[in-house]
Amino acid sequence: MNLDPRRLKQLQTLVQKLGLSKDAPINWQLLDLGLTHPSVSGKDNYQQLEFVGDAVVRLAAAEVLLENYPEAPVGEFASLRSMMVSDRTLAEWADSYGLERYLLISASAMGDKAGRISRLADAFEGILGALYLSTHKMDLVRPWLDSHLKQKAVEIWQDPARQNYKDALQEWSQGKYKRLPEYRVRENLPVNLKEERFIAEVWLDDRFLGKGTGASKKMAEQTAARQAFFEIVHPEKFT
Amino acid sequence: MNLDPRRLKQLQTLVQKLGLSKDAPINWQLLDLGLTHPSVSGKDNYQQLEFVGDAVVRLAAAEVLLENYPEAPVGEFASLRSMMVSDRTLAEWADSYGLERYLLISASAMGDKAGRISRLADAFEGILGALYLSTHKMDLVRPWLDSHLKQKAVEIWQDPARQNYKDALQEWSQGKYKRLPEYRVRENLPVNLKEERFIAEVWLDDRFLGKGTGASKKMAEQTAARQAFFEIVHPEKFT
Repeated sequence: MNLDPRRLKQLQTLVQKLGLSKDAPINWQLLDLGLTHPSVSGKDNYQQLEFVGDAVVRLAAAEVLLENYPEAPVGEFASLRSMMVSDRTLAEWADSYGLERYLLISASAMGDKAGRISRLADAFEGILGALYLSTHKMDLVRPWLDSHLKQKAVEIWQDPARQNYKDALQEWSQGKYKRLPEYRVRENLPVNLKEERFIAEVWLDDRFLGKGTGASKKMAEQTAARQAFFEIVHPEKFT
Repeated sequence: MNLDPRRLKQLQTLVQKLGLSKDAPINWQLLDLGLTHPSVSGKDNYQQLEFVGDAVVRLAAAEVLLENYPEAPVGEFASLRSMMVSDRTLAEWADSYGLERYLLISASAMGDKAGRISRLADAFEGILGALYLSTHKMDLVRPWLDSHLKQKAVEIWQDPARQNYKDALQEWSQGKYKRLPEYRVRENLPVNLKEERFIAEVWLDDRFLGKGTGASKKMAEQTAARQAFFEIVHPEKFT
């Protein structure tokens, strides 16, 4: 099966935007698939590639963290990484390349505004999967992805609230409601990922503020506080 | 800093067991680190490499699944992979190379029998991280890791109870206790990983049997049933 020459040209444009040569050893069929939403085909869509792409971006992020923050406490790596490669971040990067223009999607699915971020993140991972599987190496991915990862790592690292969302949340709840948030932590068994050994919820009286997981109770509380911080205290930081 | 020649020789032996040449472009310092337990040094140990190695094995497993089971429902990939690269599996592979012989560890930590599986799994990931970072490619990893992954994928794929642990568990509880297990499912918010969107617990009256996560309620129930199946119904399958 050959790609429609117009589609190929479109994909070549995208690849050049990523900073790759259009003569790079890219499997264009795969890339086409990586940019095909499940609404177009239940079978031939980006879902499998997204699964691979998710693993690709996590590996690249692990490497970038280790290279750039070798002195960081290892317990922080997992939470730093989950911030670095959140759906929101991936969607942001997707947007910076105008990815939506290259995505094959049905009109009705496109109308689902609430699903836009996860759709963009999925397609971004679809591209990563397609590029990785084109050579079975990181060669087509890291040259352009690393700069995004590094920049995001710096941003998170320099965020004054980083790892201190509990304090930030406490300041907010005391200032606004004269009360302290309450943390409820329990063990998350069975443990699939070490970084999710504990689950913490943070509440203010009867109001659920946020939830998070972590390798330690403290880390889970911080993750919960972070969610509350971004979604309730400062939602504008997310937009 | 140079490695003690005896340690180098030891590591070369291990590398040859993996099927690699001792002249391969291996960063021996890193490999030494990948096999150093935190009880030996709080700073220079395998933890950072383990973080990278975890991402390496997940990427390799994703690729193996896609290559070997292209027709599998994509929703199953995540649960298949988590079975493929569980601590238990990694420890099994570590054991097959006699990894414990190469691990630098304090005597008291070694005495912690309960921690043996996670220790072996961690060191195994430490090796993967060291080999991957030696070349920043999969070249030193996939030639020997893929056969393990493929074999494990086949094993899981052919397991008659695969994806049908709910039935298996129901048979057991009806046969033994004349009662049905009960599932309690809730949404796991915020979602860090799609494969963990739902959390299910399975109970038999007041007895907690197992817990699991999944991208759908059904998948989470299956994962919970699977845990119950292996840990309570057929614990011998785990030993």
